Amino acid sequence: MTQTTPRKTVVIASGGLDSTTVAYLLADQGSEVTLLSFDYGQRHRTELEYAGRIAQHLGAPHVIADLSGLSRLLTGSALTDPTVPVPDGHYTAVTMRSTVVPNRNTIMLSVAVAAAISRNADAVAFGAHSGDHAIYPDCRPSFFDAFTAMTREGNDGFLADCFQLLAPFIGLAKADIVETGQSLGVPFVDTWSCYKGGRVHCGTCGTCTERIAAFSLAGVTDPTDYVTSVAAVAR
Amino acid sequence: MTQTTPRKTVVIASGGLDSTTVAYLLADQGSEVTLLSFDYGQRHRTELEYAGRIAQHLGAPHVIADLSGLSRLLTGSALTDPTVPVPDGHYTAVTMRSTVVPNRNTIMLSVAVAAAISRNADAVAFGAHSGDHAIYPDCRPSFFDAFTAMTREGNDGFLADCFQLLAPFIGLAKADIVETGQSLGVPFVDTWSCYKGGRVHCGTCGTCTERIAAFSLAGVTDPTDYVTSVAAVAR
Repeated sequence: MTQTTPRKTVVIASGGLDSTTVAYLLADQGSEVTLLSFDYGQRHRTELEYAGRIAQHLGAPHVIADLSGLSRLLTGSALTDPTVPVPDGHYTAVTMRSTVVPNRNTIMLSVAVAAAISRNADAVAFGAHSGDHAIYPDCRPSFFDAFTAMTREGNDGFLADCFQLLAPFIGLAKADIVETGQSLGVPFVDTWSCYKGGRVHCGTCGTCTERIAAFSLAGVTDPTDYVTSVAAVAR
Repeated sequence: MTQTTPRKTVVIASGGLDSTTVAYLLADQGSEVTLLSFDYGQRHRTELEYAGRIAQHLGAPHVIADLSGLSRLLTGSALTDPTVPVPDGHYTAVTMRSTVVPNRNTIMLSVAVAAAISRNADAVAFGAHSGDHAIYPDCRPSFFDAFTAMTREGNDGFLADCFQLLAPFIGLAKADIVETGQSLGVPFVDTWSCYKGGRVHCGTCGTCTERIAAFSLAGVTDPTDYVTSVAAVAR
């Protein structure tokens, strides 16, 4: 999707593997990156601290957009609603659906575009990957294309003509991202994936399960401390 | 734009003439309306109280989405930045530009879509009118079409197939909206337009100037109390 390296990029930074590797990739390409994280009342708020650590590693600004006032609007998802349990094990269509926050990516991308306009940045980058497509419609290439078209219509005259929405890993699996991150020197120990609210990765929720499998498939040593690891139990 | 009357509509309600008349129109058509207002750190926060009065008149729920945490991201607009003055008099391309909050409508519409999904509503309605087109690209029909296409892509499987984004006044001038509101019994005295931060309409800012002209053109008595009225001074 990248035609040219953007001069200045707002990277949506969840503190996880994928968005951290996006930030390292853009910085490696010479773009001036700003990390933008969202507080949307998620139970795994620890991820915000991890995004801050990554910004420090990169010497980049870290901005936290406070959307916590929206949490009562965005009910019904395991990520924000304490009455909905976070599912364990490999994601299925049914369990993964419970982790969908209504229209979350559109809201986050819209705020990122606003931040880009305010800061005179010419790109927004996002860590969606191919494993997200099946359940999350707002992680699909067709959505990104529609979002970019909408953004250009809605900000005609206010946004750089060369503005790009970048999703460099949209065609990659999570294991490929681990491999890319390894080659870029990403400090994986300072990334956070777990959807549960603990201080240590649980090792059993869907996202921990994905994280463990990605390191294993990539043949990269996983430096993460897990409470319980399904992989460890299986050994 | 309306094919069928929606069963349940989230109306973006600024407390002003336009969105109030949209809410009355939808309620009159038999749709169950929820009024959704935004606190985005605007200096004219009085409008939120006025939106609440309208919800009371309609017996409708009033939800305020708290985006005030975003105010430091959305700098540079006269509406949110205390260092930028609110321009007086008729809008020109230059003065009106200073009232543009980056990507504001996209952010508000995205949150409204999230609220609609959470509440199982089948429409979002918005009070944009033809006078907004020239300066605000995110008030143009081409933007609404792009936004609707993006919303359908991004929420495939989570949003009603019959979902509509309604902008019933997109082809009307503000004076036409006053006429429509008059016929629907809109209590104009409980609507708020002024962009300055006072307790009474200033009568001189661009939005007050538009409001005064709209009542005058529609031949409807303006019940608004103004500190100073350009029209009154001219008389």
